[in-house]
Amino acid sequence: MSGSIAPVPASAIDRFDAEVDVLVVGLGCAGAAAALEAAAAGASVLALERASGPGGSSAMSGGELYLGGGTAVQKACGFDDDADNMFAYLRAALGPHADEEKLRLYCDGSVDHFEWFRAQGVTFQESLFDAPTWMPPTTDGLMWLGENVWPYNELARPVPRGHRPTAEGFAGWLLMDRLLAAVRDAGVSIETDTLAAALVVEDGRVVGVAARRYGAQVAYRARRGVVLTTGGFVDDEEMLAAHAPVLLGHGKVSDGLDDGSGIRMAAALGAATRRMGSVEVALTALPAAMVRGMLVNALGQRFINEDVYPGLFSSAAVKHQPGPWWVVVDETGWESIPKRDLWGVRPRYAAETLVELESELSIPEGALQATVDVYNRHAAVGADPLFHKNARWLRPLEPPFAALDPRLGFATGRDSAGEGTGAAGFTLGGLHTTVDGAVLDVSGAAIPGLFAAGRASAGIHGEGYISGTSLGDGTFFGRRAGRAVAAGAGRQP
Amino acid sequence: MSGSIAPVPASAIDRFDAEVDVLVVGLGCAGAAAALEAAAAGASVLALERASGPGGSSAMSGGELYLGGGTAVQKACGFDDDADNMFAYLRAALGPHADEEKLRLYCDGSVDHFEWFRAQGVTFQESLFDAPTWMPPTTDGLMWLGENVWPYNELARPVPRGHRPTAEGFAGWLLMDRLLAAVRDAGVSIETDTLAAALVVEDGRVVGVAARRYGAQVAYRARRGVVLTTGGFVDDEEMLAAHAPVLLGHGKVSDGLDDGSGIRMAAALGAATRRMGSVEVALTALPAAMVRGMLVNALGQRFINEDVYPGLFSSAAVKHQPGPWWVVVDETGWESIPKRDLWGVRPRYAAETLVELESELSIPEGALQATVDVYNRHAAVGADPLFHKNARWLRPLEPPFAALDPRLGFATGRDSAGEGTGAAGFTLGGLHTTVDGAVLDVSGAAIPGLFAAGRASAGIHGEGYISGTSLGDGTFFGRRAGRAVAAGAGRQP
Repeated sequence: MSGSIAPVPASAIDRFDAEVDVLVVGLGCAGAAAALEAAAAGASVLALERASGPGGSSAMSGGELYLGGGTAVQKACGFDDDADNMFAYLRAALGPHADEEKLRLYCDGSVDHFEWFRAQGVTFQESLFDAPTWMPPTTDGLMWLGENVWPYNELARPVPRGHRPTAEGFAGWLLMDRLLAAVRDAGVSIETDTLAAALVVEDGRVVGVAARRYGAQVAYRARRGVVLTTGGFVDDEEMLAAHAPVLLGHGKVSDGLDDGSGIRMAAALGAATRRMGSVEVALTALPAAMVRGMLVNALGQRFINEDVYPGLFSSAAVKHQPGPWWVVVDETGWESIPKRDLWGVRPRYAAETLVELESELSIPEGALQATVDVYNRHAAVGADPLFHKNARWLRPLEPPFAALDPRLGFATGRDSAGEGTGAAGFTLGGLHTTVDGAVLDVSGAAIPGLFAAGRASAGIHGEGYISGTSLGDGTFFGRRAGRAVAAGAGRQP
Repeated sequence: MSGSIAPVPASAIDRFDAEVDVLVVGLGCAGAAAALEAAAAGASVLALERASGPGGSSAMSGGELYLGGGTAVQKACGFDDDADNMFAYLRAALGPHADEEKLRLYCDGSVDHFEWFRAQGVTFQESLFDAPTWMPPTTDGLMWLGENVWPYNELARPVPRGHRPTAEGFAGWLLMDRLLAAVRDAGVSIETDTLAAALVVEDGRVVGVAARRYGAQVAYRARRGVVLTTGGFVDDEEMLAAHAPVLLGHGKVSDGLDDGSGIRMAAALGAATRRMGSVEVALTALPAAMVRGMLVNALGQRFINEDVYPGLFSSAAVKHQPGPWWVVVDETGWESIPKRDLWGVRPRYAAETLVELESELSIPEGALQATVDVYNRHAAVGADPLFHKNARWLRPLEPPFAALDPRLGFATGRDSAGEGTGAAGFTLGGLHTTVDGAVLDVSGAAIPGLFAAGRASAGIHGEGYISGTSLGDGTFFGRRAGRAVAAGAGRQP
């Protein structure tokens, strides 16, 4: 937090440097989607980006898009999906307290949204990666994101919905490359190195943005409205402490510029926020080892089915369990991991007995043994009555054992020496918006001329998160906001 | 949430029904404290209360006050305390992320604050109640609130600081009776049945309140400022869902009128909020049974030292552990509970073996046995290496066993049939204020003429809570706000 972000009266602006129909503030995935739709509706659009180039945190992300309901990729891979089935999964996985109105629209419109990505030049390979992982090391275009594990496999028909642009590993750069090319083709103007500092207001309506560019004051007027797509607030320590302290001290999944400025600019006008404490958090444990062994807390207790989508074991650990957390696996399990799923990780501790391992991990004597005893007793008959891990992974664990440092594995939240907490995340809460992106004030009324999408807003998420739903709802509701602002939906009657 | 709480320009008010120096909105403990100090400083004070009589949620509370640093009661009971020692405990117990600046002042001023209560006619018996409980059934004036258990006994010198007005059981009514008598003696005017609807503003400054009284519009002008002491927001389901969803579905510790209206009225002016997700939550488990046995989650796992302050086991269970939670005790332990500590509770299940009890509690076979095995192994030598329960309570548990329904015990969050979740709570987050109660906007600047205290504001709490700290900081910072507003600290230069 630095300096005043109080709204500026239009009368205090000497000269507007440009006047357009629609101003988009922040050019990540949500801003690109809003700009594209506003331009497609015939509006003149100017997008402001504080960095020296557009893309934002979206371009640094994995690039997964959570899409379903029967996309071409799903069909080609032999899966039968529909919007209701997708809704049933996401309501549970993004909950409790997912926004059901937004979620319903998101699921109903998902096949169309998939086709929209293809129309922008984003390609998806029609093949499935079928193993537990954070991110496939292949170019497969479809992956599971927790749909096939308990309890979700009982709440909805299991169908994979992780759609991946065709790239090995991180694909956010590619997704944004295509969207930004489309933005330029659509005639959208882009001003980089331009930091929005305050909203400009006139007669109770947002009519522009005051900004700084290389130290100079600039101002832009928007005839139809302003769309805030400035991202979340993981990079602002003061806002984290005030609203999402669970992420303090952990790594940040961002481009370093997610400082919540858009949220605060709107809040200065009385905008309401929702679910500011909800976060995504990723623990860098190795899924391939975990499913074959167990994840325990500092007291040697299991707390989740280890075959769950990695974001869920991360969230369970970081939010609810005393650390350090450990992945315990036996030699047989370790040896059976395909090399491509090892991410170069080696066990940190090895021990002939659990007594020895307890000592090495500073787990109280007997505690890990008791956990393994209960696990083995049921695994011997293919059951996991505590957490319902799939029978595919169940087998009594036998000596010798190894323990993995969960700070090693996936490249987030730690340096190359395994320092840090092993966890990194970003924020999900933000401005309270309608399904068309209109920003609501604390009385529940729309603030004329003001829209928001992406992580500057509260989207489809409750307290849960699944990969691909932030790029997914950022683009989906970014598009809706772009259409609404271009239609003048924010204009006063 | 209902209707607009947008600020009203003074020019839109035809006639002010009264004009005073200081308006206090809400007459619970924080409002009473603010009114008393403002009046003592020579200001004319009018307090608005929406209910038909003052007292608010404070009057319905237990009445404990968290005070220390060497009070007369502590000294009479033979305890040596100081402000640093008190600070060390509260920083840990109210954390992580307690407000250290406010906490420092609170601890440094605690002996004076204790004497201020006595000066208002609140009496404290100079005797200690020395057993784990939610609330002593005696008139003892001092009780432990977690200071003597792990890990707090290693972070600070254990000294009891729970100060209780002289009443059996709930004492909030008595505390408020004395404070309100002092308020009337001080010449403060009180308007009951008067619901503040919006702040009145003029030239960027808060100058009054628009309200409704028996359906009629009324308005009050404040020459020096307005103090919002309207309480938290546990009674507003929409605000709970947006900011503190962990309390959804649980009982509410309130007078039914804690709907966050003051927080929203200020947020409409661009006020910042902090820690809106922090809550107090109480699980109605029987402490006397728990210390003698164990508290387990739905999977038969222990998760905390059972002798901890009841608010902490409640918070650990409700926020972090899968329910239903169970108190498991053996016959020897149960029989040793003093009758006065039983609260009329009887075990719900009894069993000759743990296998049988697992079946009755739907705990997976072997899981509770494993927990008891590990517990007994260490209890036999007076140790609890997992959670460090005091050796005073450690003894191997032997058949027969019983399980208590944690929905029975303390009279919150359940009806007489044990319905409900067994948990009830209130919200701790609110407006961002200076140590003198000035409300800050999202740019960090004080909003001229606007003050807040009590649960309408974010006080000394981080994510933790200890009984007596809400009445404690509500009155302490209510007094500071009263002095600041009377001194015109909120006036523009």
